[in-house]
This record gives sequence, structure tokens and C-alpha cells, in this order.
Amino acid sequence: VSFFSSRWVDVPAGLDEVPGGGLARGFRAGAVACGLKPSGDLDLALLVSDEPATVSAARFTRSGVLAAPVLTMQGRCDLAGIRAVAANSGNANAATGRRGLDEAARMQGAAAVAARVEPAQVGICSTGVIGVQLDGRKVVSGLHAASSRLRADGDGDLAAAIMTTDAFEKRASLALALPGAGTVRLSAQAKGAGMIQPAFATMLCFVQTDAALEPETADLLLGVCVKRSFDRISVDGQLSTNDTVILQASGASGVRIVPESAEELAFGQALDALLRQLALLIVRDGEGSRRIGRVVVRGGNGEAVERCAREVANSPLVKTALHGGDPNWGRIAQAIGAALPGASPLAYDISIEGVQLAVAGQAVDADIPALAERVARDEVEYWVGLPGEGFETEVFFSDLGHEYVTINADYTT
Amino acid sequence: VSFFSSRWVDVPAGLDEVPGGGLARGFRAGAVACGLKPSGDLDLALLVSDEPATVSAARFTRSGVLAAPVLTMQGRCDLAGIRAVAANSGNANAATGRRGLDEAARMQGAAAVAARVEPAQVGICSTGVIGVQLDGRKVVSGLHAASSRLRADGDGDLAAAIMTTDAFEKRASLALALPGAGTVRLSAQAKGAGMIQPAFATMLCFVQTDAALEPETADLLLGVCVKRSFDRISVDGQLSTNDTVILQASGASGVRIVPESAEELAFGQALDALLRQLALLIVRDGEGSRRIGRVVVRGGNGEAVERCAREVANSPLVKTALHGGDPNWGRIAQAIGAALPGASPLAYDISIEGVQLAVAGQAVDADIPALAERVARDEVEYWVGLPGEGFETEVFFSDLGHEYVTINADYTT
Repeated sequence: VSFFSSRWVDVPAGLDEVPGGGLARGFRAGAVACGLKPSGDLDLALLVSDEPATVSAARFTRSGVLAAPVLTMQGRCDLAGIRAVAANSGNANAATGRRGLDEAARMQGAAAVAARVEPAQVGICSTGVIGVQLDGRKVVSGLHAASSRLRADGDGDLAAAIMTTDAFEKRASLALALPGAGTVRLSAQAKGAGMIQPAFATMLCFVQTDAALEPETADLLLGVCVKRSFDRISVDGQLSTNDTVILQASGASGVRIVPESAEELAFGQALDALLRQLALLIVRDGEGSRRIGRVVVRGGNGEAVERCAREVANSPLVKTALHGGDPNWGRIAQAIGAALPGASPLAYDISIEGVQLAVAGQAVDADIPALAERVARDEVEYWVGLPGEGFETEVFFSDLGHEYVTINADYTT
Repeated sequence: VSFFSSRWVDVPAGLDEVPGGGLARGFRAGAVACGLKPSGDLDLALLVSDEPATVSAARFTRSGVLAAPVLTMQGRCDLAGIRAVAANSGNANAATGRRGLDEAARMQGAAAVAARVEPAQVGICSTGVIGVQLDGRKVVSGLHAASSRLRADGDGDLAAAIMTTDAFEKRASLALALPGAGTVRLSAQAKGAGMIQPAFATMLCFVQTDAALEPETADLLLGVCVKRSFDRISVDGQLSTNDTVILQASGASGVRIVPESAEELAFGQALDALLRQLALLIVRDGEGSRRIGRVVVRGGNGEAVERCAREVANSPLVKTALHGGDPNWGRIAQAIGAALPGASPLAYDISIEGVQLAVAGQAVDADIPALAERVARDEVEYWVGLPGEGFETEVFFSDLGHEYVTINADYTT
């Protein structure tokens, strides 16, 4: 199966999967089972760039409740020069107070020793149960062990070590041909599937490239691409304390991405396709998900367009209809009304999979049986038109089914 | 079973249930099966006050997508002088455009003839499927038939005729003793259970009293009491196109409620208890609901307090934990963070059923087994403390279980 499986991702010319996978040049990774996961599965990974001039950029959750590793990265890390990343699953190190910050600093320090870099060059990420102190001894000895397992094809272990309720691995290894400049590699590993039993959602994503990027270019491209990928998905409308995306550029390919060049454009398109597909895989892995929805909203008021898209994507009525393969556009109308209180009378249009269902707020005749067949497919697209023009946005969302309830309600502490 | 079944409702002294039920004096109601519900159950009701001086007040959904009956009431009705109410189930007359407004006007006109009042004195309400034209012929002949069935004890039929996915009737018949002034009656009928298959949520509530109220008093008291009842509940965070609450005061008891008197205070407390309990019954009847939650949030910023309470009440993670009887306070922390992006580090406190679980953003030791027993009961209370003082709010919410998914996803059009 091709990594690029969604019709909602434009794959630029010259971008191909690397058979056999592996990290971008200049990177090595290793993982161990240090005992944080009761299952004994891989739960701690170390990712290292061997290039001293490595450039990086990062993005974090906007939650008002931030986990210790996020606070540590924001306060004690050179975000433009991350050489190594230590990531654990099985414990989120969130709501752990002063001691949690101490353990995060200890993790950062141990990873620096293991990777032979400065602590400020180490990014740390945690995902798993919250409100439980992280066992720093396991992490320290685990990072030491991981440092002896660093391999250029360690991306599979890295992806496995950050999984929690994920049903499948999310990783890619790509080659981008830049005409006249050479070929660069991009590799990425992500995790996320709604939330983590018994606590809450985290998405992590690590991206490596052997292209040489300016720090400003790395930050700009990551910012733009995150806005079009991880910022546009919703499994359950929940916001994690730990979400982190890190891009590292080792420069090992010798290919420089010059600002405002054709190469920058091509690299940006490749990064966009990579992150969008990873984001869609997280939605696809939404707990109990059967189908993915995409809502596109257009109109003349940017704030109204955004609110409307979020309300549709997070509506449990829309999500259960998506799960059931039910072309129930009345639930879309309900979400529009809820998003825009006081806007009545509102001339909204609704179509699903190209079939027009409401025009100017009024039901129109439609071929419902044909539509019913289309909404039973893997991906379902909803279009909402609000009055005016000039703004458009989209949100990708998973459905809501029995499995979600089973995972999140039937768990017993 | 007593109508006042929740510990979260303060029942004032002098307020008692009327054995055998019945409408407040001056009111009669009747209902018929006019053919809007495929089941053949009661689906159309007429409620009439025989007192020409009847005073009323009303409140409506704030949705930006309003149903035809709501638009009609707002545009063509004397909201302070509603004598009669016509209500149907089986069709919401929403997203029905110009023709829907014509049918709503026809319904209002037919009810006026049936009740022998002016059209502007008739309130109309619809609940049921959306995007389907209301069959006005059924409504017109049904209202004619209902007019011959008007009875002082027609409140049971009225309550039945507005039910949709409701699992049980929601109505009360109360007597309030006002020392030195006499006794007045209050009766009420409500419906609502999350949403309406195959469309969306509607809550309706009709309240009758034989006290004599000034229009300003009726409007003031209804406004305050709706803010403390139907405005503070969430089954699934969804906002209907049709929500309507109507209070009518016939004055038939001869007892006047003088503004700013002890009687006004007592009447207001009784109305508050009545509407709060009805609101809790709607939450209790939330589709597939097993337990009710109440979240109380306190802090120094009113907007933050409100956002936080709504985020907790609407979080599918919190709702599934409530359903599963899981004392998972990490999900509360997640909701707080999501409600207040950028607020980190945030010194929040969390307790469930009086058991302190987090202080100043940090987990504290707690007796989790004892807590697990308490969260398995019918009503579960969550307290959140944000920094500062001066603001407090509450939201009541249902849980999220398999039955909700079954009702909303497993339906096939």
C-alpha cells in the first residue's frame, strides 16, 4: 500500500517513497523497552543527528495545561538547533508539578550524554498516562541502552516506541528530486489515535531531512505545513498537553534549500504532502474510526468560516452519521446554526460528495440513494457555503462509533 | 417517585406536587394522532388558556439556523399575550424555506380558529425530522379534532404528543402555597432527549400557572429561570433549530404576583425548581445516558469559568469516563487546558465528589477506590478551581455510551 493513500493529498512531482524505508542521511535512531509500558513493548527512543550544523524547528500544543517535557523544551532547549530527540510512551509526565519538571530535565540530560550533545540540543517528548510521576531511573538507563542501538534504519523502532493506542505505525521515508540541485531525503515518524488510555490524546511527529535549511526556512516551512495538517484534524475535538512536532535538517545531502528558490517551493510541497498524509493517518487511526470526513467551508467572514468548520468536524451528530454511512445533512445544518448564533436567517448551502442538498437554507431535491452509496465509502467530503466570498478552510475528522465508547468508557481503573 | 429527584434542585417550602396531576386552573389541552408520526402515536397538541387576560413570556434557541415555527413566533406573535399553543412532533418544519413559513402561518391560523383566539395570540412549536415539508392538511384537520378534546387534565396527552426519542414523559403539576396570598398552581410539560432521529435535538417546554403576573414579571422570571436550567445543560453540545420555552399565566387563581414582593420571590423559586428539575430530566433522558454529571467551575475570570465548564461538559473523554464510572480526572485537566489555550502554567484545582485530585496543577494522593465507588452512582459532581475569585458557574451533562452511538449511527436512511 502506498503511503500517499488519500485523495486529499497532492503529491508533487519528483517525490517518491524509498523502498525499504530508513532515516534521512545524517540521522540514526534506536529504541528499547525500558519498562514504562506494562506490556513490555518498546517505549523509549533516541533519535540523533550526527551533523553538528543540524537545524531544527518545532511546534507545540496550545493547551493551557502543558506537560513537563513541553515546558522543558520551551524553556531549556535551542529549538533551532535540536540535534537529538528522546521520546517515551507509557507516561505523559503531565500534571506532575515540580518533580515532573525535574524528571524532564533529567531525561534531557541523560539523552545529551547518550547522544554526545549539549542538553540544550536535546528535545524531549512523552506520551501516556498523566498524573503519574515518570520513573527517571528507567528512562536514564534506557537512554544509555538505546545509544548503543542507534541505526540509520532505526525509524521503525522509533515509530513503534512512541505508539500508545495507535492501531498501526505512521511513518514514511521519501526521496525528493530537485532538478539541477540533487536529491534530498525526508523521513518522518508520527503517533496519535485520539487519546491515550487511561488519560488523553497526544500526537507526536518527528521529521528528518538531509537537506540543508536555514533556521528561518525550517521554522517557516514547518509552521505553514503544520497549519495545513495537524492543525486541521480532529479526532474528538480534544487538545492534548503533550503535542509536539519537530523538524530536523542535517544537511548531509549537501543540497541547500535557498530561501525563495524553486527548491524551497518543491521542498515545501513535499513537506506539506508528508505532514498532510501523516495527519490523515492519525485521523484514520482515530479510536474506532471507520471513515474519514473532510469539511470545506467557504464564505465572506473568516471567523465564521473557521467556527463553522470546527463545529461540523466536532459535532457528535455529524460524526455518528459519518460512522453509520448516513447522508444526514440536517446535522450539518444544525452544526452551522450552532456555530453562528444569532445569524438567522442564514443563506447557507450544503452539499455532500458533490450532491447539493440545501441551497440558501432550504432543502432541495436530491438523489438520496446515490448519495447513500457514496457516504459509505472510506472518505466523505462535505461542502458548506456561507454568504460572501474570500475565505475557505477545511477540517479532517474521524467518525464516532462503538469502538470509541468501548475504548474510553469500558476501561476500568 | 417524586418529581424532584435530584440533589441539585432546591425545593422551596410550600411547593408540593398535585396528586393526579392536571393543568393549572384556566388551561385545557388536547392531543391527537394526525399522522405525522409513522408510529400512529399522538403527534399534535393544542393548549388553550380560557382567560382573556392571560400573560406570557417565551425564550428560543439562539441557533443561527432557525426553524419556521420559531421565525413565525418571533415575527407574527404577541409573545406577552399567548393564549394558545399548537405543537407537533414528527416534523421540525426546519430548512423548509418559504413554503415552511407558509405552513407555519397556516398552523398558527388553524390553531387560532380551533382555540377561538387571534392568530397573534397563538404560539407554535414543531419537533422532528428536518428538511421535509410539513403536511399542513394533517395539521389543520388535526387541530380541529384536538379542539374537541380540550380537558383540564389534558397535560398527559400534551406531554405525550411532543415526545420524539424521549424515553419517558417529562411533566409536573405543582401547588405553591403563598402565605397570606393563597395557593397558585404551576404545571409544565417538556420534551428533549439529545436529538431527534433522524435529524437533530429539540427541547420544548410549556409552563402554565394560574397566578396573575405582569408581562414584565413573566418575562423576567422566565429569563432568569431558563438561564439556570435549560441554558445550563448539555446532552451532546448540540444546538437545535427549534428550542422553545413558553410560560403562560392565566390569573385564574385570583392571586396576583406583585413585582418585588415576597410572593414574587417565592414564585420565582418555585419556577426555578420546576425548570431545573425538568432540565435535569432532559439530561437524564440524554440518549443512552446512564449517569448525570454536574461540573462547577470557580475563578476570577468569568469568561474563562464559562468556557472551562462548557469544555468539560462537552468533552467526549469526560462523558465516556462518566459513562464508564471511571474517576479519570486527567480528562478534566485536558478539558481545562483545551478551554484556556495559552494559559500555561495554570494553577487549577480538581475534585470529584469532594475528593481533591489535583492542587495547583499537580496530582495529589487520593483514595481512588473510594472515589471509584462514588462515581458509579447516578449523579457525579466535578469541581474545578481556576485562579482568582468572584465567578462561579455550573453545567449539567449526560454521559456518552454505546446507546448514543446506536441511536445516532446505526440508523439507516
